[in-house]
This record gives sequence, C-alpha cells and structure tokens, in this order.
Amino acid sequence: MLEVEVKYRASHAQLRERLGLLGFSPAGLAEEEDVYFQHPCRDFAATDEALRLRISGGRAELTYKGPRAGAGAKTRLEVSVAVSGDAALLLRSLGFAEVARVRKRREIYKRGSVTVYLDLVEGLGEFVEVETLAGSGSDAARAAGELRRLAGELGLREEVGETYLELLLRGAPAGKRL
Amino acid sequence: MLEVEVKYRASHAQLRERLGLLGFSPAGLAEEEDVYFQHPCRDFAATDEALRLRISGGRAELTYKGPRAGAGAKTRLEVSVAVSGDAALLLRSLGFAEVARVRKRREIYKRGSVTVYLDLVEGLGEFVEVETLAGSGSDAARAAGELRRLAGELGLREEVGETYLELLLRGAPAGKRL
Repeated sequence: MLEVEVKYRASHAQLRERLGLLGFSPAGLAEEEDVYFQHPCRDFAATDEALRLRISGGRAELTYKGPRAGAGAKTRLEVSVAVSGDAALLLRSLGFAEVARVRKRREIYKRGSVTVYLDLVEGLGEFVEVETLAGSGSDAARAAGELRRLAGELGLREEVGETYLELLLRGAPAGKRL
Repeated sequence: MLEVEVKYRASHAQLRERLGLLGFSPAGLAEEEDVYFQHPCRDFAATDEALRLRISGGRAELTYKGPRAGAGAKTRLEVSVAVSGDAALLLRSLGFAEVARVRKRREIYKRGSVTVYLDLVEGLGEFVEVETLAGSGSDAARAAGELRRLAGELGLREEVGETYLELLLRGAPAGKRL
C-alpha cells in the first residue's frame, strides 16, 4: 500500500472542535520517538529514502520509506516490521548510522479510512497531518485531492512538503537541532 | 554475549543414547529455514560477517553475526531481534540480496548451559553442533576447550570449521546447491 499524506503547520487550538463537527472521532494519543538511520552506502538525502526505528508505548517498529512520488502530496512506499530486541545495535553492526531523533506527541482522530494527527514535535512546534492509504498511483492522486479538500474544510492553509526529519536537520523557522 | 560453537560431521545413529548417558535431556525439535543476505556494499564473504533471517515455527528472527574470532572454535558476536512482518522485503528495499537458503531439522539436547544440536541439513547430511555462550574472549577459549572434550566423550571426530552456508555455497562433498 501507498501512504498518502498532506501536512500543515497549524495551531491545534480550534481544530478539535472542527474535527468533531466533520465527523472525526478521537482515536488515542501516542508519544513517539523516531530514530532515523543513514544507509552505509546510499545517500538517503539524495535518494529520498528513509529508515526509521519508531519506539512508542514500549513497542518498536522498523520502517523503510521509499522516495516520495507524484501527486504533490507525500505519497511513498512504506514497508514496516515489528521488532523486539536491540534493533539499533543490529543496524549499527550492519553499518547504518543514527542521524537524528524526532520526538513527538500526537493526538489521533479518525473518520473512515482517513486519519488526522495533531502533532506536537519537539523543537518544531504544532503540525497537522492528514493521511490515508491508496492502492495505486492514480488512487493516490485522487486521495491527495480529497485530503486537501478536507484540510481546507478544517481551515488548514500552510502546507509543508518536508518531513519532520528534514525540518529538524535544516533548523526550520521554529526549530532547533535535537 | 559470544556464541561458542564446535561442529562435527557425524551420523546421529548412536548419539542419542550417549547424550542420555552423559546427562543430556531432549529439549525439543525445530524445523528451521535460514535465509542469508548479502550486504549492499560490504562483501560478507571477505569480512566474515553474516545476516540471517531465520523462520521457525511461524516465528522469524533476524541475526547479525560478526566475524569468527579466536579459539579455533566458532566464536562470534551475535545480535538477534525478533521480527514480524515482511522482513525480507524490508531488507531487499535497503539493497540486501538473498544469497542462499539453508533448511534443516534439528533435535535439541541440553545439559546446563551446553546445547547439542543433531542437525539434518538439506543437501548436506547429518551434523552435530555443540554450543554454549561466553561473556568474554578468555571465557570463550576456555569454553571451546570444554566443548571439544565433551565432543570427544560423545565420539565426535570429524570437526568442521565452516558454516552450513559456506558448505552449501562451495558444493561440499555430500552437498548440492539448494
């Protein structure tokens, strides 16, 4: 499956009420720590790939993210496996190097197949991600359009094309290196 | 921890009785399928490392094995993590390539911290592995000596220094490529 996602910089203050009016229901809270790794012989910044170890609620998940493709929205192949044990040590043994950590607190809202995340990212501030899954590239383009319409209904204006990792590494406006 | 292991080519016919006389108890049976991967930019055959995805009893484990060190016996760093999901797809996405599969059926016997495996390896035949764990290099050398004495008591004579993967890749005496 392809993950389709649009992201906005936005204060969360009035969003919870708007989400309720649009039929979204609260679906939990998550504290996530993401450790990103550099490949031993590929420049992920150039190939637009990523390898992420996510630690959340005592569980760990390792995810490969392929290059972002089409649709303006962030559409990319994701492959995730649940891991238990010292996955970071295994990755370092294989030559992968830790490049950055992203820590965030997310409030999750759902309506059907659409998920909205109200993210408070350490060092970056408040963001909103609107996400769904698509089966193919043309589905993804359609889905991205629908997500942007929904974002408009939510009053979201300031779209952000970069990942949290990129914003942190670049020292974004409100940002500082972790 | 360091894994310390000595391996012998040996018929299993009279071993079960001898293991019982030496105080070993049966500790189960396992059918294991090991998928070995080549690193995207390191020649594991030259660096004497390995990356193995083991599938056994519906569970999967990913293990990095460091270079064999000292003691004549096979002593090497191992880092294992349990995985669930398509770990092979994730590895292929990162540029790791599948090099070989080793399938075996092992009968497991234990006495204290020592484990004996009676291995029937597809394409290679019958082997016996005698294994323990050590905390340091000098412990490992001592442990290797004890494992060899025990192997002598079991009547094991034909020690094999190579891994099953190496034997298969080289087309060992009784072997054929899988």
